[in-house]
Amino acid sequence: MSDLSVDELSPVLVIGAGLLGASVGCALTAVGLEVHLRDANPTHAQVAAQIGAGVVENINPAAVATVIVAVPPRALAPVIAAALDEFPHAVVTDVGSVKGTVLQALRERCVLLDRYVGSHPMAGSHRAGPLTASADLFVDRTWVVTPHATATPGTVLAARRLGELCRGVVVEMDPFDHDVAVAAVSHVPHTMSVLTAASLTASTPAHLQLAGAGVRDVTRIAASDTGLWDQILGENSPAIVARLSWIHQQLGTLIDALSAGRSVRTLLETGQAGTRAIPGKHGLPAVAHDHVIVQIADAPGSLARIFAEADAAGVNIEDIAIDHDPVQQVGWLSLAVVPERTDALAATMRDRGWNVQVEHAGE
Amino acid sequence: MSDLSVDELSPVLVIGAGLLGASVGCALTAVGLEVHLRDANPTHAQVAAQIGAGVVENINPAAVATVIVAVPPRALAPVIAAALDEFPHAVVTDVGSVKGTVLQALRERCVLLDRYVGSHPMAGSHRAGPLTASADLFVDRTWVVTPHATATPGTVLAARRLGELCRGVVVEMDPFDHDVAVAAVSHVPHTMSVLTAASLTASTPAHLQLAGAGVRDVTRIAASDTGLWDQILGENSPAIVARLSWIHQQLGTLIDALSAGRSVRTLLETGQAGTRAIPGKHGLPAVAHDHVIVQIADAPGSLARIFAEADAAGVNIEDIAIDHDPVQQVGWLSLAVVPERTDALAATMRDRGWNVQVEHAGE
Repeated sequence: MSDLSVDELSPVLVIGAGLLGASVGCALTAVGLEVHLRDANPTHAQVAAQIGAGVVENINPAAVATVIVAVPPRALAPVIAAALDEFPHAVVTDVGSVKGTVLQALRERCVLLDRYVGSHPMAGSHRAGPLTASADLFVDRTWVVTPHATATPGTVLAARRLGELCRGVVVEMDPFDHDVAVAAVSHVPHTMSVLTAASLTASTPAHLQLAGAGVRDVTRIAASDTGLWDQILGENSPAIVARLSWIHQQLGTLIDALSAGRSVRTLLETGQAGTRAIPGKHGLPAVAHDHVIVQIADAPGSLARIFAEADAAGVNIEDIAIDHDPVQQVGWLSLAVVPERTDALAATMRDRGWNVQVEHAGE
Repeated sequence: MSDLSVDELSPVLVIGAGLLGASVGCALTAVGLEVHLRDANPTHAQVAAQIGAGVVENINPAAVATVIVAVPPRALAPVIAAALDEFPHAVVTDVGSVKGTVLQALRERCVLLDRYVGSHPMAGSHRAGPLTASADLFVDRTWVVTPHATATPGTVLAARRLGELCRGVVVEMDPFDHDVAVAAVSHVPHTMSVLTAASLTASTPAHLQLAGAGVRDVTRIAASDTGLWDQILGENSPAIVARLSWIHQQLGTLIDALSAGRSVRTLLETGQAGTRAIPGKHGLPAVAHDHVIVQIADAPGSLARIFAEADAAGVNIEDIAIDHDPVQQVGWLSLAVVPERTDALAATMRDRGWNVQVEHAGE
């Protein structure tokens, strides 16, 4: 823990009472800080106050010790600049998902940045949809703090301490390095999903009837909020453009190879290597699981029975997925298990009358 | 049902005893046809015979009534051509996933094609990994038959009858139209997944630690068999290149827009529309489900308890997904339910002590 008392950070003003702002408010309120809430929409601040995120009261700007800006991407730089001006003694941080671009925008405004440092709690980003605000949202999650040259050590320390009080795992990263990382693992994959989904609008309903599980996986996140993503992509455009340009060039090469009848196996193998480079469950190295695939009727009770029987067999299910048959009124439930337990689980399920098939790891 | 007796199709020779070939053999054996099996690897034919797919015996070529070619994509045209030559009285079909290109290749060989017509049972394609062969693999699934100008009516009728005997839902489609459809819903999404995954190989492990559920979804199918996919992409390259070229152009436009600081919301909205164009579960129109999200410990028994309790509440779970937290030793189980049952399920789960959150459809 950083050597900075709770009292030195309080009172806190959270600007923007959405999921992240309200969750930070709840977490800091829970550990004894005085948290004030402000939102361009006063109703949002009131709702956040009602779930324990803080209070909505007038506060003397000179008394505010910490400001946390939790507004949409495009509003970050102006709101941060205004907060540095309005609260002359406060440390100001933000919880936006883009860091270098915001810093650059602040520098271009010639704002004195000794009292500002960026933060990016990685919570919430793992789901497309909003979770309701919660003081537990950040527990054990990576909370990136992005120091820059003119931030004072006390400013960085305060931002680290906020992350710790929210029970995040604080790491420091250069702001521009951070933006390259999230471009690679989030913004570029989102863009590729959107392009794939967009291409489907050129297909007839008869053609789309042939869609299987693969295209659904690839295009799932393209259903996300377009307004928010327009802002995210716009704010992080330098890092995104760099990587998309590489993909654009690779796609051109691929088109040339396919047009000329050449093998594209090298690219397919690079892609396969890319899937293996993603860390596994809980950030641990990826473990190869077998999959026990059980045919299920689309009726209440099937899942309950299967899980009860797997549990009775003493087998821990590492992961699950349902794959609906687009035509038959059945689905396949894929149960991931460590290879040592595959035979036991498959035998148990067959004994109970299920139609069971096994995919071994690496097949 | 087509007006063609089982006797007129028998004996059948299946060439290629993999998942599809062995499954066709099982299905046809089950309805009384005499099925012979042949594979370049004799062991594969023996294994298929052992599971009831047919017999491995010498047969008089002049006696064979039907040949079903179930070999890898690149081998289709030469094996079909050889079969038409070797079995002078047989109707020949294949079960490959590419149709127009194979027809074109056969035409270029100047093969007389009155006794050949293509088939594409859509089974198996919905899973990345192999299911074991089964006579039930094709039940209620789309079984595409792709007639061409010089196939005799009797040839097309025989291919339709085979699909019916395998209990598929037979539809006719122009071979080249078929290839455009599978390029759009399968081959292009696969390629986009591969390109995204390939781009990750340029990232450091520290950057990849920030990977969430979205990039995992987009890149999942890029882990598939690279040798098989090299053949599929190569065989269907005209249709794939046409659509990839559109995407290539869109990606260029997107890069230009991001570089110039322009909004890309129109493309994001086209992508969102594309996700809505994909037919829903079981081929029905997409239904908007709510999601009841339950925090689960990574321990045996959690899933069994949750499903038992949901079942006791009388709520049918329409779909499920586990989202592992990359850091915390917990996961979220997302239970999709029709909106009328959301409150009942959420209340039941909260009563039982689960940490429950709700995402309403459309959020």
